[in-house]
Amino acid sequence: MDFAAEMKRHVARVERGLDLHLPPAGTRPARLHTAMRYSLEAGGKRLRPVLVLATAERFGVRDDSALPAAVAIECLHTYSLIHDDLPCMDNDDLRRGRPTAHKQFDEATALLAGDALLTHAFGLMAESYAASPALAHALIRELADAAGSRRLIGGQMEDLLAEKKADASPEELEFIHLNKTAAMIEAALVMGGLAGGATDKNLATLRRAGRHLGLAFQIIDDILDATADTATLGKTAGKDAKADKTTFVKLHGLEKSRALAANHTTQTLTALRELPGDNTFLTALVESMAQRVN
Amino acid sequence: MDFAAEMKRHVARVERGLDLHLPPAGTRPARLHTAMRYSLEAGGKRLRPVLVLATAERFGVRDDSALPAAVAIECLHTYSLIHDDLPCMDNDDLRRGRPTAHKQFDEATALLAGDALLTHAFGLMAESYAASPALAHALIRELADAAGSRRLIGGQMEDLLAEKKADASPEELEFIHLNKTAAMIEAALVMGGLAGGATDKNLATLRRAGRHLGLAFQIIDDILDATADTATLGKTAGKDAKADKTTFVKLHGLEKSRALAANHTTQTLTALRELPGDNTFLTALVESMAQRVN
Repeated sequence: MDFAAEMKRHVARVERGLDLHLPPAGTRPARLHTAMRYSLEAGGKRLRPVLVLATAERFGVRDDSALPAAVAIECLHTYSLIHDDLPCMDNDDLRRGRPTAHKQFDEATALLAGDALLTHAFGLMAESYAASPALAHALIRELADAAGSRRLIGGQMEDLLAEKKADASPEELEFIHLNKTAAMIEAALVMGGLAGGATDKNLATLRRAGRHLGLAFQIIDDILDATADTATLGKTAGKDAKADKTTFVKLHGLEKSRALAANHTTQTLTALRELPGDNTFLTALVESMAQRVN
Repeated sequence: MDFAAEMKRHVARVERGLDLHLPPAGTRPARLHTAMRYSLEAGGKRLRPVLVLATAERFGVRDDSALPAAVAIECLHTYSLIHDDLPCMDNDDLRRGRPTAHKQFDEATALLAGDALLTHAFGLMAESYAASPALAHALIRELADAAGSRRLIGGQMEDLLAEKKADASPEELEFIHLNKTAAMIEAALVMGGLAGGATDKNLATLRRAGRHLGLAFQIIDDILDATADTATLGKTAGKDAKADKTTFVKLHGLEKSRALAANHTTQTLTALRELPGDNTFLTALVESMAQRVN
């Protein structure tokens, strides 16, 4: 398997799906729909939607039937970035190498574009899977749970609270990363499995794989924030240290953080091996993520 | 029928449902869940959830099976108020007679509490109607459509844009009111019908009734903003005139606005009469709303 080519194929499908499944920029009100597309089209790694598509394909999906779920999770992720960048949150001017939504438009438009992307994530799945209400229901339930007040938004809230304290505890950091980051990566694998008709046992294994992958991803992100530059990241680097934010790197040091990330990567691969069938692409994807900091 | 007693019964059910179907205030993170409940428990007329319950009951629902849908629409409505009150939007300090969420907590908490209520609206229905995926799907689809970028959020966006212009046209005002206000009232009636197993024909009639009721409601709101005081409204009165905002009253004057509201009320009642069965409570509710400005 040519990993780079496979990755490119999946990303191209995601880009096409985003264009296909978002209202055209000229849809009234044009400013709102333009802002929604501006943030979605800023690029990024498309990790979550690629995980949906690759997992669905792994479970036998050969057509575009997982694409709306992939688009929905990218809409959800993008909304969380738009709101996270707002002045009352992280107050960031740069995202994926471009001005953040509230810089490009204004705060109110960014707020509403985020709200609209969040709502669209659910509406799109309800619409696209109308012929399979049970699948629509399972996908929506999974995404709403991962994105809700106990998980994604809960993680963002504790992240904000932790920034105001001198030191967050390892336990608080774990809560934040499990929910702010790992929840959506876990959901991506599970949603791919749902679209592919995976059994409950395999869905549970996908959930475990996603949890470890999400934790590895966040630790790697912390390491990169501490070691890479802004141009490489496409977002402001060194922010965590500047804000004296508690991260894995601050709490455990670089070496221990690398070891922790490697451990979660290993556990991800172990979980994937428990699944029947061909893991070639998912394994290569997990390993390519780990290599970013090795 | 004792209208006041019936109204009280429905509102009490809504209040009980809100308490039952929201995570406890102490759920981690407590600040987030406390903020979600703070805004929900601020009261208000509970018009949308009462419409869901009353419509469902009218179509034969005798148990609490419409309650999660009613709670979901109130979560959705409350999120839209929290975000609408933020400094980058209407910048309002007072809502339902209490400090707005960002005044009581802070902007970031208010933003996240709004996001969480929006997400919870969908998650709650996915969870509560898990045994009836087709109903869950239909309810979620209806709410996502009404709350999406072409309707509720689209209306909010055009409302903001209109405020920056010297004069909004009657056509722009119609778009704003149809979407910012009428969409959710329409959805309330349709969701009640869905929970009650109404036929497609009756659902279409409910949609038409909801559209006229929503427009009547918004015109009445404009009239009250121009004529009532802050204590009566529980929110800042005279805001529209102060902001030189285009409203029905500014565009058409008080008399014509009253006539327009009366016309939409009549059309609501006409639509309701097309439904088979007993309209006593819904008719009384529509009339009580109209009487607020007569």
